[in-house]
Amino acid sequence: MKTVNLEQSVGLVETRTVSIPLPPGGLKLENGGVLPELTVAYESYGTLNAERDNAVFICHALTGDAHVAGYHTKEDTAPGWWNDMIGPGKGLDTNLYHVICANILGGCKGTTGPSSINPETRRAYGEDFPSITIGDIVHVHYLFLQQLGINRLHAVIGGSFGGMQVLEWSIRYPEVPKNCICIASAASLSAQALAFDIVGREVITNDPGWVGGNYYGTGQLPRNGLAAARMLGHITYLSPEIMTTKFGRKKKAHAAEDRFSTRFEVESYLQYQGEKFVERFDPNSYLHITHAMDSYDLVETYGELKTAFKDVKARFMVVALSSDWLFPPEQSLEIASAFVQIGKPVSYCLLKAPYGHDAFLVDIEHMSQVICTFLGGCATPNPAMPVVKRDDYDLIANLIEPGSRVLDLGCGNGDLLSLLATNRNTTGMGVDIDLHNLIAALEKKLDIFQDDIDEDLSMIPDQSYDYVILSQTLQVVRRPREVLHEMLRIAREGIVSFPNFANWHNRIKLGVTGRMPKTEALPFEWYNTPNIHMATWTDFLNLCRQDNIKVKKIIPLAESPISRLLVRSGLRNLGAERILVNIARP
Amino acid sequence: MKTVNLEQSVGLVETRTVSIPLPPGGLKLENGGVLPELTVAYESYGTLNAERDNAVFICHALTGDAHVAGYHTKEDTAPGWWNDMIGPGKGLDTNLYHVICANILGGCKGTTGPSSINPETRRAYGEDFPSITIGDIVHVHYLFLQQLGINRLHAVIGGSFGGMQVLEWSIRYPEVPKNCICIASAASLSAQALAFDIVGREVITNDPGWVGGNYYGTGQLPRNGLAAARMLGHITYLSPEIMTTKFGRKKKAHAAEDRFSTRFEVESYLQYQGEKFVERFDPNSYLHITHAMDSYDLVETYGELKTAFKDVKARFMVVALSSDWLFPPEQSLEIASAFVQIGKPVSYCLLKAPYGHDAFLVDIEHMSQVICTFLGGCATPNPAMPVVKRDDYDLIANLIEPGSRVLDLGCGNGDLLSLLATNRNTTGMGVDIDLHNLIAALEKKLDIFQDDIDEDLSMIPDQSYDYVILSQTLQVVRRPREVLHEMLRIAREGIVSFPNFANWHNRIKLGVTGRMPKTEALPFEWYNTPNIHMATWTDFLNLCRQDNIKVKKIIPLAESPISRLLVRSGLRNLGAERILVNIARP
Repeated sequence: MKTVNLEQSVGLVETRTVSIPLPPGGLKLENGGVLPELTVAYESYGTLNAERDNAVFICHALTGDAHVAGYHTKEDTAPGWWNDMIGPGKGLDTNLYHVICANILGGCKGTTGPSSINPETRRAYGEDFPSITIGDIVHVHYLFLQQLGINRLHAVIGGSFGGMQVLEWSIRYPEVPKNCICIASAASLSAQALAFDIVGREVITNDPGWVGGNYYGTGQLPRNGLAAARMLGHITYLSPEIMTTKFGRKKKAHAAEDRFSTRFEVESYLQYQGEKFVERFDPNSYLHITHAMDSYDLVETYGELKTAFKDVKARFMVVALSSDWLFPPEQSLEIASAFVQIGKPVSYCLLKAPYGHDAFLVDIEHMSQVICTFLGGCATPNPAMPVVKRDDYDLIANLIEPGSRVLDLGCGNGDLLSLLATNRNTTGMGVDIDLHNLIAALEKKLDIFQDDIDEDLSMIPDQSYDYVILSQTLQVVRRPREVLHEMLRIAREGIVSFPNFANWHNRIKLGVTGRMPKTEALPFEWYNTPNIHMATWTDFLNLCRQDNIKVKKIIPLAESPISRLLVRSGLRNLGAERILVNIARP
Repeated sequence: MKTVNLEQSVGLVETRTVSIPLPPGGLKLENGGVLPELTVAYESYGTLNAERDNAVFICHALTGDAHVAGYHTKEDTAPGWWNDMIGPGKGLDTNLYHVICANILGGCKGTTGPSSINPETRRAYGEDFPSITIGDIVHVHYLFLQQLGINRLHAVIGGSFGGMQVLEWSIRYPEVPKNCICIASAASLSAQALAFDIVGREVITNDPGWVGGNYYGTGQLPRNGLAAARMLGHITYLSPEIMTTKFGRKKKAHAAEDRFSTRFEVESYLQYQGEKFVERFDPNSYLHITHAMDSYDLVETYGELKTAFKDVKARFMVVALSSDWLFPPEQSLEIASAFVQIGKPVSYCLLKAPYGHDAFLVDIEHMSQVICTFLGGCATPNPAMPVVKRDDYDLIANLIEPGSRVLDLGCGNGDLLSLLATNRNTTGMGVDIDLHNLIAALEKKLDIFQDDIDEDLSMIPDQSYDYVILSQTLQVVRRPREVLHEMLRIAREGIVSFPNFANWHNRIKLGVTGRMPKTEALPFEWYNTPNIHMATWTDFLNLCRQDNIKVKKIIPLAESPISRLLVRSGLRNLGAERILVNIARP
């Protein structure tokens, strides 16, 4: 928790409400219900520009609300829930963007929900509140933005349940968001996550205080049930590692221990979270919203994710959190892969975030950098990376047909892709494991997939690119043969460059001095080299012959005078320091 | 579920009860309570031998009972809970062992618990049942075995909560068990596991039907609370992967969907598990037993695990399950590491078990093999491995002082350790990543740690061995330099053997033909070789010089006539096909 520092935030803000005009008959909901009236609560910061196209809409998570940044009063003990992300000079810079967040339909923070007054009965809806879906939630926010006169969004951003809304925005209103950022989310909950929600609802509806949902004004409340559901929720928001770090088996010195309660700090923490939640949240809202989340399933609705996303127009960024087990990275990867599979622009980022699912709220340093770079609006941009143009880049460029689609495996900071885009008018994507490379590539407006090319390239469909490039990377992968075959599954042609172990210098080093070669092309010691699969010119050609890989062109790269002389004399396996090969399907 | 097949089981069995004579004043419990009477329910199979030393005691898990194998009636729909493990010719062979399992103190299956009649009030104990610990549970079983006249156990075995009892047995009664097998367990619950139990007890005690524990005979029962706690438990028993495989987001075709329940199969499954549990288990037992489990903490009691285990006499086997997240493998590793740290015999096995924590009940094929091999009582032993004696084994043996303690990293099937034990009278342990090697080494009565030597050897204390051997393994590790330093941290001396990349054959292959060498010592292709860090005689010596590693002896190994000739001529870096080095601290 920070102390109130208005300068570093959007300052004092307030939640406003707006009544949304509805057609006669009210708002029809996806599951058949109807709402006669609709109010939306929201906050906004920063200035909407004259073109009305700099708005960024934040989709809040399950139990969040519109108060996303700043303070409600000078005495506030805590700012809005994403205050570290949003403000002047922050990841979402309010000097550039008009940031808006609105409470969701079914919530209890000002937007119409089960605790709102039903105009037909003049009492709280209670059990009469109709079933809602994420489609309804997004639809209401769409109507709300229309009401504000905002028809285009620079971006829609959300984490967790908010990420599901981002997906829905991109599908349902493809013309509205220019960019979408979906963080720590999924196209549907996993069986395990469903199971936790099921138990959570079970304990609320089992609580006699729930009275079928009609506890408003009765003095009753499913207090214990809601608190227990929240305790359970909080377990799933943290990684086991952070629970161990934060609590371990530490005990409260002065806590009372009755028969079955313990003195463990984790018990006090959970109970505190449960009690705090009861004070601020409506049990019926919790039931409705979790039910909407559980029911959301793009695969069920569209058959497959590729179909769901087929009309999406937004540039997409999918962010996964490494230690999130409620919305595990594989689910984010599925979303990003679906975009790759239909050839739509997407970047995928897997942040190291030890905190678990809650990291999207707390571990935001790198997330903030990724988001602002992706949106092209970093107030304090990274220092431009020095462009280290490798000598083989021009040669590679010469092998590429102009206008091609190119996949660069191990793309580094994106220099080559950038050069190709400029000089050969290519489009395409990079794959790299490193976060800093990802950010550098995003700065160049490239699409980049943060992934280990050794692990799995199966998300990239057959023949989806014209060229796959593997520049100075073959020798560091664990399964080079498999990677070569994957390249030619993905594209008609591949371009591979690697150090030639049979260069004369290496031969002399080993042959005469009896030591492992160490050269400019192989600058490491035997015990710390990342180069774990060395090959020679001849070896590579033999493998190509054996595996029926066509070699369209093979270019020896040589810098030292002797190497160059040997190459010129036709002794290419002896002269080449590195080798550039254009391979193709037979 | 199998159909009743009495031939493949211990047949028809019954649960018997025995009253345990107590000293005047009753049974004093660790937390201060007293029980005036004590009854223990148990089952046993197989015959106790004349020496009374072939008994195997099974410690059951949280909600298990004494009915561990066989059938109670011919019409039984299900056998005892570990029927696949126990019986004639099975992992725990009842032709060899007298297998005993007894219900735990505090349970509700015949051993004294909260639902038992309190002789002082002639009513069920209810809220008067005293607080119990795992120490009390094991103490009661000790008294019970004394009563049966059994003073020595061939083994104590248990999984999960039962594994904690195994630890307690080994510490509290070190003279009793000859062997201990602790499966999918921990020396204390993690913060996350505690948290789940805390929520589970919360929902039971919040249920108005609990009436403070005095629901017996009132017609009340915390039915909903107990069911919800069990639903929650079942989530933690399965891996997320198996939940996806088993249920995913499949829906029941004919299930009713009311407002907040769903048609997901996972919901029906959990509800069924909850309801079934309410029929068979007593809520107060659940509260007492989970509380005893949560409170168990060997580190809190003894300061550190090494101290806890210092007087243990049993041979130990620790088995972890790869996808278990309730008792994650790291916790088993901690237990096994503590034994290693105090130089006590231990084997550690990490089974690939996709099922999650419940795998210890269902995925038992390999577990059964590991257990029976460790106990030396496989009814159908593995075919003896052919002894492939490597030519360097004798040379290694000659470098080892008789009677030394030896650690063999990458020990394979244990042949070398076995040879050293026979010829040089050594003791020690092997480390290997492969399960089949583990089983082969267990067959040779070796202690073996299933681990990746590249990952972490920190569990092995400084100077805890006389020699560390790394035979033909240096070239396949990712960080060879670090492994060498770890060797000399662990022992005064190390013995390393590796292929010499500077052998004349390799030099000619690369130097003349320009191809990556492929020889008897290096039999792989460049693209599929596991040999990722090749060194030469000179390279290795240079690293030793640079890192201040003393080379006590270096032996060139050569087989081909030319290699032998070169070695004899003193051209060792040219002649050696492989190299054997005895390194030591400076």
